[in-house]
Amino acid sequence: MENDKRHEAGLRVMEELFPEEVRSGMKGLKNVSPDLWDMAVSFGFGDLYSRETLSLTQRELITLTTLITQGAFDQLKVHLQAALKVGLSKEQIIELIIHCTGYVGFPKAIQAMGIAGEIFKENE
Amino acid sequence: MENDKRHEAGLRVMEELFPEEVRSGMKGLKNVSPDLWDMAVSFGFGDLYSRETLSLTQRELITLTTLITQGAFDQLKVHLQAALKVGLSKEQIIELIIHCTGYVGFPKAIQAMGIAGEIFKENE
Amino acid sequence: MENDKRHEAGLRVMEELFPEEVRSGMKGLKNVSPDLWDMAVSFGFGDLYSRETLSLTQRELITLTTLITQGAFDQLKVHLQAALKVGLSKEQIIELIIHCTGYVGFPKAIQAMGIAGEIFKENE
Amino acid sequence: MENDKRHEAGLRVMEELFPEEVRSGMKGLKNVSPDLWDMAVSFGFGDLYSRETLSLTQRELITLTTLITQGAFDQLKVHLQAALKVGLSKEQIIELIIHCTGYVGFPKAIQAMGIAGEIFKENE
Amino acid sequence: MENDKRHEAGLRVMEELFPEEVRSGMKGLKNVSPDLWDMAVSFGFGDLYSRETLSLTQRELITLTTLITQGAFDQLKVHLQAALKVGLSKEQIIELIIHCTGYVGFPKAIQAMGIAGEIFKENE
Amino acid sequence: MENDKRHEAGLRVMEELFPEEVRSGMKGLKNVSPDLWDMAVSFGFGDLYSRETLSLTQRELITLTTLITQGAFDQLKVHLQAALKVGLSKEQIIELIIHCTGYVGFPKAIQAMGIAGEIFKENE
Repeated sequence: MENDKRHEAGLRVMEELFPEEVRSGMKGLKNVSPDLWDMAVSFGFGDLYSRETLSLTQRELITLTTLITQGAFDQLKVHLQAALKVGLSKEQIIELIIHCTGYVGFPKAIQAMGIAGEIFKENE
Repeated sequence: MENDKRHEAGLRVMEELFPEEVRSGMKGLKNVSPDLWDMAVSFGFGDLYSRETLSLTQRELITLTTLITQGAFDQLKVHLQAALKVGLSKEQIIELIIHCTGYVGFPKAIQAMGIAGEIFKENE
Repeated sequence: MENDKRHEAGLRVMEELFPEEVRSGMKGLKNVSPDLWDMAVSFGFGDLYSRETLSLTQRELITLTTLITQGAFDQLKVHLQAALKVGLSKEQIIELIIHCTGYVGFPKAIQAMGIAGEIFKENE
Repeated sequence: MENDKRHEAGLRVMEELFPEEVRSGMKGLKNVSPDLWDMAVSFGFGDLYSRETLSLTQRELITLTTLITQGAFDQLKVHLQAALKVGLSKEQIIELIIHCTGYVGFPKAIQAMGIAGEIFKENE
Repeated sequence: MENDKRHEAGLRVMEELFPEEVRSGMKGLKNVSPDLWDMAVSFGFGDLYSRETLSLTQRELITLTTLITQGAFDQLKVHLQAALKVGLSKEQIIELIIHCTGYVGFPKAIQAMGIAGEIFKENE
Repeated sequence: MENDKRHEAGLRVMEELFPEEVRSGMKGLKNVSPDLWDMAVSFGFGDLYSRETLSLTQRELITLTTLITQGAFDQLKVHLQAALKVGLSKEQIIELIIHCTGYVGFPKAIQAMGIAGEIFKENE
């Protein structure tokens, strides 16, 4: 795959994952560092998310889990929206957070659940 | 659910997840702390893994991801075996690790892939 | 211990640990996920904090330390209040944070001390 | 080196690293814990930053990297200002964050880049 | 306190904390970096552990907790020995690890319990 | 840059960074996952390390720091060799670890120093 195609593939996946307003918000990054923006699109979404073998809902299960584990709660907000958009239900997301409790402890799980509650409310 | 039932439910899930020799190995814990062993069975497996809404294969996607993210590579070995046992393919596990690269960086992903390679060889 | 008793035991410990307004604040969790709330009460407080062998002040020494180490500063606020309520002095809490410096580095210690300063002021 | 001299050496390095208003802001710590303040000055800046073998710009490369890796974004703001003050260019800081992407993943790198963008704007 | 005195104070605390053979083992560090060795003695043990307000048993509760939380299992071995030497019982150490489960998850707690089991056996 | 060129650029940087036997050792990864191997070469080394604005010695300062901070000690061994190969002195590496002490605490710094001591001995 050539680089233009990697970038295009990334943009296509991003459309599947994120609502328009989330994608707009992401462009603040483009102003500070067009190169990191391009890497996030071409490598993050083009090379990684565009691959086969796992579906986008499976990929979002993985993404939510790693973000909760590393305490990256700002990015968690964005990927909770993506998770809902690619078809994970509210109940499955809650269940994922409950499952994580045994692996990351209550503090991170409870903080994640609070954020999920906010995103669910915004999406009602 | 009463406590006996929580414990029984946990043991039942553990049978679905782990081969006999893995479960035997886990019992070293029981000798040091019967109470932590009971909590792992009753809460970890009984309360968490026995719940509905997510399948065991989805739960192992989550578990593998959190273990890779926190660098818990000893436990990763055990859950790679569980992942295979509940039906994730070698290709899906490799794909999960590749997906994680964008979230945890190459060092942890490469270390996880090395361990996965060992487990795959043992299971051939 | 049956499940009702685990829950009751948890609520009893929570009364010892947290002022009324803190416990009210925690109930936001109950609206998003009654199940995670129940686990936090029954397992977190009922099964863990209600045990013997370590006092509640010793348990708060442990809790504050793990929260500082993992950078869980939102939960730190809540447990700084618990620490004061179960009898740790302001001086002991400051000393704990200073001791942690050698183990977690200055950035987390300094951030924790700033938060402790705020909680001390609110409690004057 | 006697203790007075360690403290003085620390204050001298802090003048090289931080603008006056940053140093004033740091003194909130002094009110909560004069002892942790003294350790930060005498050990952190006096014993560590005053050493030879690495320049202050090299030390800030190291400091920015460890703060991004541990997700200590509040302290990152302060050291982004220090990095600029001791002579790292905006381009070098952006490059450091891009390099980190392969080691810490996109979420922390993107969050760091957003903060760097704010600091660059304040310094224009 | 002058620097010689800080170093002496550190060595005195280390004698209280660690058996002779542990202290000998630590001296490998001295060969690679005499300066880091001196900082560990003077700052780590002299400035931090020698302070008042918390007892050595309280300090070891804190140290064990931060080591388990950050997954620093090599250093955990050394401080499990120190914990026993300053008077924490086997039961209290087991209890500390159980308490941590709710905060760090089962994988780290179970790994810590395995190591504790080994240290207890060596000390029988 | 097309994908072939990204891969070639990555291989060229890897030759500058790692001795032949280290590069051979890395190829174990290629057998488990040729795709992750290609990403490590093309993205990790081709896209990231081949960029300008920071020298390879500056990039190794950054890499060593993030590896120490996240406790990735296996990968640390490999990059200690790279650091020496691109021209960092033994003294500078020791100094980097000492500087990190204030940011990551003594346990990780001391473990890193022990590993550095082994690598230095092998390279004598």
